[in-house]
Amino acid sequence: MLQPLSIALVHHPVIDRQGSTVTAAVTNLDIHDLARLATSYGVCRFYLTTPSYDQQQLAAKIMAHWREGFGATYNPDRRQALERARTVNSLAEALEDWRSLAGSAALPLFTGARQRHGIGYRSARRLAREAPLLLVFGTGHGLSPELYRPEWPTLAPVRGGGYNHLSVRTAAAVILDRLVGEQGRCMPLAEF
Amino acid sequence: MLQPLSIALVHHPVIDRQGSTVTAAVTNLDIHDLARLATSYGVCRFYLTTPSYDQQQLAAKIMAHWREGFGATYNPDRRQALERARTVNSLAEALEDWRSLAGSAALPLFTGARQRHGIGYRSARRLAREAPLLLVFGTGHGLSPELYRPEWPTLAPVRGGGYNHLSVRTAAAVILDRLVGEQGRCMPLAEF
Repeated sequence: MLQPLSIALVHHPVIDRQGSTVTAAVTNLDIHDLARLATSYGVCRFYLTTPSYDQQQLAAKIMAHWREGFGATYNPDRRQALERARTVNSLAEALEDWRSLAGSAALPLFTGARQRHGIGYRSARRLAREAPLLLVFGTGHGLSPELYRPEWPTLAPVRGGGYNHLSVRTAAAVILDRLVGEQGRCMPLAEF
Repeated sequence: MLQPLSIALVHHPVIDRQGSTVTAAVTNLDIHDLARLATSYGVCRFYLTTPSYDQQQLAAKIMAHWREGFGATYNPDRRQALERARTVNSLAEALEDWRSLAGSAALPLFTGARQRHGIGYRSARRLAREAPLLLVFGTGHGLSPELYRPEWPTLAPVRGGGYNHLSVRTAAAVILDRLVGEQGRCMPLAEF
């Protein structure tokens, strides 16, 4: 039995093309693609992580449009998808919230196209049955190195050999499908 | 051994919210996400299908920027990804081109979130070893019903039960990963 699962889309600290630490911009499309993906795969919470007040306001406006505004009646599927989205200041805050819902055993599972020494998907599926995971995705050119911590697991990249430049949207799709597959069921949010 | 594989992103005929047949707009993001996905999974050709001359011009401009313009030196990964992209007028034209490259046994494999009676992924993987497939994805609210033909196979939707409103980008990622997985190798384009 899969434990409850959440995802975080981190906009800071991430790296840019040159490897400098930056805050990536929130995009309307990432919000929608990841919210729909999260809902399809029974993910409990989708944490949009940015310390920028302006960017949080923008994200909140997009979410409110589809949750409560005109969009909610125009497109109820998007309303449903965005119900599980939350804006937080940092990954630490996302983890704290997720632990308050799913218990203190909840654990981040990092992702990253450059993490050659990450755990395989078989181990990751075992982990997903043992602990409520918070899958962590980076925007820009990936999560900043200081986020990775030896006591927290990291997942091997999708497509370890050869060309590996997936967008965060498509990488998240593949990773969720490999972890959850067809069996995962959408957990009623009321349980949290 | 997997046979060579191509994908088509169809912008016409597709349906809109109300079920009317329309031509969906080409988007910069779909082009990039699907080109990077295609390159990562060793897909030979990415056909962008639209009968609209203006939209073809727009797509050609985006592709040329990354293939030959400033983008090619700024971001060689995108150049590589867009090398396999082609703009065509129709799905028939995409199939004709793909057959001229991969042989007359090449076969379309349709996708669609509403295709409840499609073949499963085990059958699809068998098919992908037997024939060079052209995986067909729809934009908008999905491929127009008249495109589906009884003599051509259709794939069962990703996540058949419950909420199923993935973007075409994330659905294509899951489908390619299920068909090709980690084993697929990027085929040198010179072979075609």
